Parts: sequence; C-alpha cells; structure tokens
Amino acid sequence: MAELDGLIVTTDTICAGVHFLPDDPLDTVARKAVRVNVSDLVAKGCRPRAMTLAIAWGPEAGEADHAAFADGLGRDLRRYGLALLGGDTTRLAAGPGPVVTAAMFGTPLGRVPRRSGARPGNAVMLTGTVGDAWLGLHALRGERSADDAAIRAYRLPEPPVAAAGIVAARATASLDVSDGLMADAGHLAQASGLSVRLTASALPLSPAGEAFAATGSLVPLATGGDDYQALFTLPPGEAEAALQEGEAVGVRLTRIGECASGPAGAVLLDDGGHPLPVDRPGYAHF
Amino acid sequence: MAELDGLIVTTDTICAGVHFLPDDPLDTVARKAVRVNVSDLVAKGCRPRAMTLAIAWGPEAGEADHAAFADGLGRDLRRYGLALLGGDTTRLAAGPGPVVTAAMFGTPLGRVPRRSGARPGNAVMLTGTVGDAWLGLHALRGERSADDAAIRAYRLPEPPVAAAGIVAARATASLDVSDGLMADAGHLAQASGLSVRLTASALPLSPAGEAFAATGSLVPLATGGDDYQALFTLPPGEAEAALQEGEAVGVRLTRIGECASGPAGAVLLDDGGHPLPVDRPGYAHF
Repeated sequence: MAELDGLIVTTDTICAGVHFLPDDPLDTVARKAVRVNVSDLVAKGCRPRAMTLAIAWGPEAGEADHAAFADGLGRDLRRYGLALLGGDTTRLAAGPGPVVTAAMFGTPLGRVPRRSGARPGNAVMLTGTVGDAWLGLHALRGERSADDAAIRAYRLPEPPVAAAGIVAARATASLDVSDGLMADAGHLAQASGLSVRLTASALPLSPAGEAFAATGSLVPLATGGDDYQALFTLPPGEAEAALQEGEAVGVRLTRIGECASGPAGAVLLDDGGHPLPVDRPGYAHF
Repeated sequence: MAELDGLIVTTDTICAGVHFLPDDPLDTVARKAVRVNVSDLVAKGCRPRAMTLAIAWGPEAGEADHAAFADGLGRDLRRYGLALLGGDTTRLAAGPGPVVTAAMFGTPLGRVPRRSGARPGNAVMLTGTVGDAWLGLHALRGERSADDAAIRAYRLPEPPVAAAGIVAARATASLDVSDGLMADAGHLAQASGLSVRLTASALPLSPAGEAFAATGSLVPLATGGDDYQALFTLPPGEAEAALQEGEAVGVRLTRIGECASGPAGAVLLDDGGHPLPVDRPGYAHF
C-alpha cells in the first residue's frame, strides 16, 4: 500500500485452495477478490475507485466458469462503484485455479493512517463482527453444522465501506483484519511499539459467534482470519463520537480494548484482566 | 490499460510453464514480470514510474528462490526507475509456480495511442528485432542448438524505453508485440478496420534470426511471440523523421510495411507482393 500522485494503491491475491475453496462458486470468488482489496482501502480511510484484475485460470476452466466469474465481478464493480481499468487473463500450466490478483486504487478521505501511529491510552475499535468467516470455513469443510450466514461471511466478506470516513478523520493507526484479529492486532502493536490489550467479553459477535462462544472458548473466533473488518485506534476522548458516527452511517462499531505502554504485542484479556491463552494468533500467511 | 487521474495503468501476469520455463532462473522471472509491463506502457507512449507486485509461489519454493527473485526485482526496479508501491505474497495450493502479476503505472509523454487509430496509407514501424525470443525458447527446449543471445532475449526482453517519446509524439496506433508480430499486427488491423501489409524482407532480424531465415522461412520468427517490442503506425510523411529520432535515442526502428484499405487483418508479403502462408499468427494466449 502506497501513494502515487494522490492515489492510494493496494494489491491482494487470492489462490484456490488457500484463500477460497476449490469448489466455491466462481461468482463469489470474483467478488471476494474485489472485497479483500476494498477492505484494504477502507481500513486506510480511502474511497475505492478503480481496479485492475489479473486472473490465471486452472487448466480445466471453461466458458461457464468464465461467465460465472464475470457475473460476480460485474456485480461487485457496480456495488462498490469501481471502474475496471484493465486486466490480464492467463492459464496455469497445472494445479487448482484460479489465482486472482486485483490492484485497487482509492482516494483518501482524510489522513491515511499507518499501522505505527497508535499511542498509549488510545482506544481500540473494530467494525463488524469477528469469527464468522472462520465458522463458515469450518462448516464448508463439514467440521461444523451448516450455517448459511457464516458460509456467506467466508465467501462474501462485507468490508465496512461506510466507516472509511471515520477512519480518515479519527484513526491514529489502522489496518484491516484478514489474518485473524489477534494476529492483525499484533501487527499494529509491533508497528506502534506498544501493547494492544483487547477484552474478550467486548468482542462483537454474530448470533452464530455467540452460540459458538457459549459452548467454550471464543479464542478461535479471534484468531480465525478472513474477517475483512477495520481495526483502528483513536484518542480515547474520540471513542464516543466515533461510535455515534458509526451508528449514523450504519456501521457496527465496537470499542474492544486499549493501547498501553509495555511489550509490543497483542493480548486478549478475560474480565479479570488475565490473558487468555492464544496458541496461534491467526492464519500464518506465507 | 486505462487512465486514472492522469496515470496510465496496465497489468500483466506471467505463469510458470506458460510464460516462462519452470527451471528459468528466478532473478530473470522477476525481471521478465517487470519488463512485460514496461513494454505495455512504452508502446503506449508512457514513462513507467511505479508498480505493485503480487507473487504466488509454488508449494516447494524456499528462501533461496525468494532471494533470487528479490535480487532480480531490485535490479530492474533500479534499471527502469520504478517505485515499488506494495505487493502481496501468497503460496499456491499445488502446481508449478510462481505466478507473478505486476500492475504498472506510467505518465503519458504525449498522446496515448490506441490500437484503433491507424489510417490507410500509414507507415508501420517496429522497434528492435523479431523472433529472437522464439529462437531462445526452442534452444532452451533442446530443439535448437544453444544460443546465448536468443536465450537471453526469451528470458530478459528489452522493451524499447527510449522509443516512448517517439510513439507519444507520432503514433496513430500502437501496441506491444507479445503474442507474435503477425498476431499483434492483426489486433491493430482489426481494431483499426484496415489491412496491415508487412514486407517479409523488411523485418528486422538479429544475426541469429538472419541465420535461421537463411535456411528456410522466416515466418516462425514473425509468429513466435514474446518479442516485447513496439509496433506502431504513423503518417507516411513522418516515417523518415521517426527513423532519425530512433537513431538519435539509440533505438533500432524499422519501417516494415503499410496500412491499406481492405479486409481487416495482417498479411506478410514476399518481395513480389504475394502473401506468405501463415498457419498460426502467434501464440494463442488464453
């Protein structure tokens, strides 16, 4: 992510069998490729405007696959008001496909917050809910009972577009949650050189997430990844105003913790202030 | 390829086993990924300025591969004066890798010629030589004797950066030759709705190309692809000035044919003006 002539540029790739399941519908694959990049820009306080798309199809892909992909792509271009600036279509020599790369261009709505700008005392805010994509992935793998809403969260994340203005106006640091909340909170903590202290009972959950957490630990929800929500910090005196602004624009916004001096890293605390064990903070992207 | 806020944006992907050989050195893979995009911008009369890079590694790739790739990437970023705006690194679930996608951003040096602007009577110009990459690919496959210059042309194309200003000032239509000269001349002819008539004996060949053509037909050189040179048209009265400008900036530039009214397509003519048989005009990119 960087700036060129006033545009903010980002790029993200999704690979079959890694970022989506090889039998996921191709219209949702196209839309996920769009949305993971929208998520990047929104978390940086930008309005997404245009993109390029490069797709490398698997050897077996045919016309019906192309049509389904194009249909999903067109729908999300319209949904997010994106111009398609061009692209490239290739075919893999072997292996599962497609491999889809978008580069996306946005205009800053204000400041473009880095990961490194958080300060001790800052409040930590999160859009949306955590853990639904993880629940959906495990449902698709047959490891949990079917759950349409969670499956939809995995295949079609909903980046919080309406929150971009709040981030641009108020965030001291921000990034999108893609690897898992604890992993990405850790990235922010490392870059800012402080401790990010999240409160487990404050994490925003969907009904499915609440049901899961009621049966045991919510840690898997906070480490599962693929949430594509915005995690940002702001001065504590601005938290209440931000929450009201979120309500006004229809974005669920939750204060989930605070920044403190201390060892650089993220911790998840129970209501007694004791750290919960987190074996693996998120998906270890290569 | 399109414009956004005064920037011209393009994207091209190269896949292992398709656009390069799985055992090609990874420093040249990185550099080829840069150069195929530089070629696109130069053929549109632009100065390349910045890029994003997304790489999906094969499952077996290791640290030495990453280091070799980074080394080649760094060399070509410096060579072409490119800023790296960001990127994404992922891993394929299976199959040969890497799959490398660059999006590249350039500033127009004048007009940005389309494929569709050629007019009957226009002269057809080509930078560099044709067919060397095809000779190199066949040498690497063991189907021809080793030829270091041709192998280098396949692995490390040399897009004619210094020609961008000539294209921007004079071209009525332009594109880069990547699929094969006859295929890309055909694309220009179709878009412009006219006949592109190329003269076989005028095609610029390297010493290796001359030696190959001396033993039989030069048609494979004109259809082999991977040349990454600029093919453009201009008013016939400007051809001599363009040739002199090419000499001044050190770019080999050759007048190879003309545009005429007639069926939309490209033909290759012998010195008697008779069409040479061309079975397949170029690499059929998916």
